[in-house]
Formats: sequence, structure tokens, C-alpha cells
Amino acid sequence: MENINFGKNVHVHPTAIIYPNVILHDNVFIEPYCIIGQPTGDYYKNPENHEFKVTEIGANSVIRSNTVIYENVKVGENFQTGHNVTIREETIIGKNCSVGTLCDLQGKTVIGDFTRLHSNVHIGQFTRIGNYVWIFPYVVTTNDMYPPMDRLEGVTIEDYALITTGSILLPGVVIGANSMVAAGSVVSKDVKQNMVVMGVPAREKCPITDIRDQDGEMVYPWPEHMKEYRGYPWQTEKEFSKKRQ
Amino acid sequence: MENINFGKNVHVHPTAIIYPNVILHDNVFIEPYCIIGQPTGDYYKNPENHEFKVTEIGANSVIRSNTVIYENVKVGENFQTGHNVTIREETIIGKNCSVGTLCDLQGKTVIGDFTRLHSNVHIGQFTRIGNYVWIFPYVVTTNDMYPPMDRLEGVTIEDYALITTGSILLPGVVIGANSMVAAGSVVSKDVKQNMVVMGVPAREKCPITDIRDQDGEMVYPWPEHMKEYRGYPWQTEKEFSKKRQ
Amino acid sequence: MENINFGKNVHVHPTAIIYPNVILHDNVFIEPYCIIGQPTGDYYKNPENHEFKVTEIGANSVIRSNTVIYENVKVGENFQTGHNVTIREETIIGKNCSVGTLCDLQGKTVIGDFTRLHSNVHIGQFTRIGNYVWIFPYVVTTNDMYPPMDRLEGVTIEDYALITTGSILLPGVVIGANSMVAAGSVVSKDVKQNMVVMGVPAREKCPITDIRDQDGEMVYPWPEHMKEYRGYPWQTEKEFSKKRQ
Repeated sequence: MENINFGKNVHVHPTAIIYPNVILHDNVFIEPYCIIGQPTGDYYKNPENHEFKVTEIGANSVIRSNTVIYENVKVGENFQTGHNVTIREETIIGKNCSVGTLCDLQGKTVIGDFTRLHSNVHIGQFTRIGNYVWIFPYVVTTNDMYPPMDRLEGVTIEDYALITTGSILLPGVVIGANSMVAAGSVVSKDVKQNMVVMGVPAREKCPITDIRDQDGEMVYPWPEHMKEYRGYPWQTEKEFSKKRQ
Repeated sequence: MENINFGKNVHVHPTAIIYPNVILHDNVFIEPYCIIGQPTGDYYKNPENHEFKVTEIGANSVIRSNTVIYENVKVGENFQTGHNVTIREETIIGKNCSVGTLCDLQGKTVIGDFTRLHSNVHIGQFTRIGNYVWIFPYVVTTNDMYPPMDRLEGVTIEDYALITTGSILLPGVVIGANSMVAAGSVVSKDVKQNMVVMGVPAREKCPITDIRDQDGEMVYPWPEHMKEYRGYPWQTEKEFSKKRQ
Repeated sequence: MENINFGKNVHVHPTAIIYPNVILHDNVFIEPYCIIGQPTGDYYKNPENHEFKVTEIGANSVIRSNTVIYENVKVGENFQTGHNVTIREETIIGKNCSVGTLCDLQGKTVIGDFTRLHSNVHIGQFTRIGNYVWIFPYVVTTNDMYPPMDRLEGVTIEDYALITTGSILLPGVVIGANSMVAAGSVVSKDVKQNMVVMGVPAREKCPITDIRDQDGEMVYPWPEHMKEYRGYPWQTEKEFSKKRQ
């Protein structure tokens, strides 16, 4: 191993493979069978002379078993993956994010801070994802207007948006801030801020502020009504322990 | 390795990782790159002092490659997994079950006996699944009424139900015994026993007993009409070899 | 390791597991944690006496990490897999194909030449796939008319067909040559050649030749209008470098 740059208190399981030019900041865990700095496809033509680009993983991150992170990926601090995650080249992820089991990030993607991908989310190339976004299982973001592959246009997901289970976002759509895509939707048009859409194809259902819970209380925008402490900057642990009483 | 409790004729591949307090009963196979007794998230804060809870795998089970089974999971005899399966903490699975390749069980789940999950099924926390249930590929059971994560309510799937490919079951729904959810459905309401539902959102289509095959014969309830021997307690191998003649 | 047959310049990562009777042709890469020649289910009853069937991987192929290829699989030259792919027994794949990350081929399947499966495609048993086919993420081909498992009938996908993201093809359907299945469709009937279908259940939308891009130009049939060089036999690299100018 050459050019490996480890911070303090880094745990790399002996079965993990670390390619050259990997930077692991303090307190990072790399779990069994992970591959960090995986070379891109051109490697196989000339493996001896491959020049590995820098891969960097922020402090206090946990990379769970059999996760593959390609070279030329940069991830901020407090990152967590589930198992069997793939993150391809040219992915930039902010701080305090998590990416669940079986997620597949195809690269050329930017993700902000405090964003969470649940299990088995597929992020196509050229997707842009903001801050405080939640993406639920089996969501797919696509990028190919006229497949196969003549004109790629990524999806944009703005801050605080909620993309729920099994939804497909078609190429180039913009999902507005604070909006919600209902489960199983196929989204072919832009979604307005604060709007709920649903169906195949997805249509507007109501403003997100119309949603009430079983007690008739407002639920959204979720940052104002979240009842659990989840480590967001606007939450204090004290306040939430009070609420629970 | 400490506190490992192996029965007779247990095969653990040398690349598999077995954490403390794992019980493997007789004739269990643990295939390459598996992790059994994987610690929960609190481990990473204080790995040296982590107290592993008991994980137990029943006799005659085959755990295929790269399956991760967390601590505090209990699985009955004759269990089979495919490859790349994840089973998280507080999962209890009965006997004679199988869980296919790429399934992701998120924990806090109870599954009965003789239940089969085909490939790539996602079981959200607090799901309850009965006996003799069949769940087909890319089915997702959800649990979050008003995401993100304020009020979790699991799905219930009763005995003999059939959840077919790519269906999404929304939080808290009850899928009645002997019912069928057609492929690609999004189920937002309870499904009656013996009923077929279909669509986005799913609506009642017909009683399951109305379904006829190409010869005009009844197909359901499937336990009464199944033409193959599949090892169910009400089948005898002799009877089925007769039927085939 | 017995009966291993390696061509020239074969790279097998030391963590990969190669079972008996595997043939790797020239210039094949087998990446970390792969399993080649994985035994079928009957192995576990009598592992010592298992007779491994031949598994063969064509020249210039790259098998990426944690891919499991069962015994009795034959793959042509220039094959590529992503990560965490499973290919079960009795799969025959032609030359110049690729199978993306997390794909799960259940076996008893024939795939032609120059066909590409993107990430997380599930191919049920008895599927027949032609040449120059494109299958996009989270597509599932099914095979069970009256589940569970009494009468299996595979899907047929003809040459040049495009099956786009998240579609489900129901048992026995034939997807005609040059046709397109739109994202999120559930296909319950045969699709005519050159036709676009969409919806749950899928209905005919228009002939594929009616589709125009943002400049009003025809996009399909894609082999006639593809603007990028992708290595197809009817393309020459020279011609495409001209087109781009």
C-alpha cells in the first residue's frame, strides 16, 4: 500500500482493500471486505501504470462491510454507510450524511449535508441532491432522456425534499424544496416547492402543509414538527428530552 | 473468537467472520465472506466494551456468501439464504424459511414458519409476517406514516398471503390470510382475506377463488391446488409423485 | 484448486474463490471476493462428492468485486460485470455483454450478444433475451403465471428492445424487437415490434418512430440515430469522431 494517509484512531479491518491515494481522517472505521479507492474502468487496460486519483473519507465515518468506494470520491465527516454500498467516481458528499445498505451511486453526483439515503437507492449520474433530503428505499433517479445514452440530464432534488419508497424520477426533473413524492410515483415533470405529488405519472395532490396526522396536527414542513431528536443543527438534545415528557 | 457454540458437522468457511456469542446448530453451513453476529451501531462508539447479544442459527441451515446477520437475531432450523442478504438485530424467524439474494431485513421483525422471501425483498422494521407466506422480488414493506420517522407502524402479512413482484405495502396495512397483492401494486388500505388487490393505489379485483388457470381449473387457495412437492407439512412426497404421472 | 484452466494474462485476486472446473480465457480479471463456479443447492447434502459442472468465462472479461457466478454458466468474450452480481446455473451469455452492479440472474436464461443490463436488474428463470437489448435499473422479469410456482413461463425480449427503469414484465410476455417499455410499467400483454408501451398495466402509447427529441429529430430506432460510439459492429470509431465535430 502506497500513499495511504491515515488519521488517528482509524480502524481498517484486515480483510478490507485500500488502494493508493486514499485519505482516511480520524476515527474512521473501514469494515470487512470493503474496497476503498477502487479504480475506474480504464485501469483494466493498463493496471501497472494506473494513476489513482485521491479518495477522501471524513472523520468519524463508519463504512460497513462490502462497501466499494471508487477513487476520486470525497465524503465529509460523520458519514455512515450500510452494507454492500457502491459509490462510483466523481461523487462528492457533504457532512453528516448516510447511505443505506445496497445503495448504488453511479458517480458524477453532488450531495449536500445532513442528507439520508435509506436502503437500495439508485442515484444515476449527474444527480444533484441538496441538504436535509430524505430518500427512501428503492427510489431511482434516472438521467437518459432518450435511452440509450445520447443526452444525459440529471435529476435535481432541493433541500428538505422527501422522496418516498419506490419512486422513479425521470431525467432532468427538479424536485422542489420541502416537497414530497408519494410512494410508487413516476415523476415526469418538475415538482413545486411544498407540494405533494403522487401516481403514475405523478400529479399534484395537495400542498404539503395540508397533511394532518391522526390527531389533526400539522406534520410538515417536517423540520418544524419533527418529534424526535435526530442530530440536526436546529435541534438541541435538551429540548427534545423535554418534549418527550 | 470467544463464546462460540458450534453443533456437530458445522461448516464455517475460513473467510467468514463470526463475532462473539453466536450459536450455530448442527449441520449449518456458513459460506464465504459472511458475517454472523454483526454488532449494532452503538459498537462504534466503544468497540472494546461492546457486549454482544446472542445470535442463533438453527440446524441444517445454509447461509450463502456475503450474508450479514446481526447480533440478537434468532433463526429456526432448515433456514436458507441467498447471497448478499442482510438481517438486522431483533429479527426472529421460524423454521423452514428462506430469504433470497439481496434481501434486506431491517430488524424488529417476526416471521413465522415455512415462509419464503424471493430475491431483493426489503422488510422494514416492525413488520410481522405469518406462516406459509410468499413474498416475491422487489417487494417493500414500509413503516413510516409521516416520514421522516415520527410514527412507525409496521405491516402485518397473514398466513398464506402472496405478495407479488414489486409491490409496496404502506405503513400499518394488514394483508389478510390467503389474499394476493398483484405485481406493481401500492397497497394503502387493509386487504381482506381471500381477496386479490391490484393497482396504484391497490383496489379489490376479485376473490382469489375466482382465478382460473388456462384449463379452467381453480388455482387458489394455493395450498389445496399446488401441483409440486415443496416440503409442506400437509404434502407427502408419495402423493405428489402420483399426481405427476 | 483442481481442474482450473487459465488462459494467458489472467488476473485472479488472491481473495477470490475459484471452484473446480472453471475455465478463464485470456486476459480475464477476477476481482476481490468473487466466487466463480459456485455449487448449486444439491452440494450441501453431500459436499465431498459434488461433481462440479464446467463454468467458462470468455476472453477480456472483467468480473468485479463480490460477483458470484455459479457452476454451469457460459459467458462470451468482452464480458463486464459491476459489483455484487449473482449469475446462477444454466445461464448462457453471448459476447460483448455487460451486467451491472447488483444484478441477479436466476439461471436457466439465454442472453444474446451486445446486450446490456444496467444496475439491479432481476432476471427470472426461463427468460430469453436477444441481441443489442438494453435493460435499465430495477427491471424485473417474472415467470410464475399462478404463483407460487406451478407453471413457469419465461419472458422473451427481442433484439434492440429497450426496457426502461423499474418496469415489471409479467410471465410469458414477448417484448417485440425495437420496442420500448416506459419507466414504471407493468407489462401484462405482448408488446408489438416498434411500439412504445407505458402504465400500470401497460398500454400502447405510440410507434417508437413517433418520438422526437427537443430539436424535432427522430431518435428511434436507436441504432440508426445513436450519436455516440459504443462499439457496435455497425459503428466505426472514425465515423463517430466526424459526427461529433
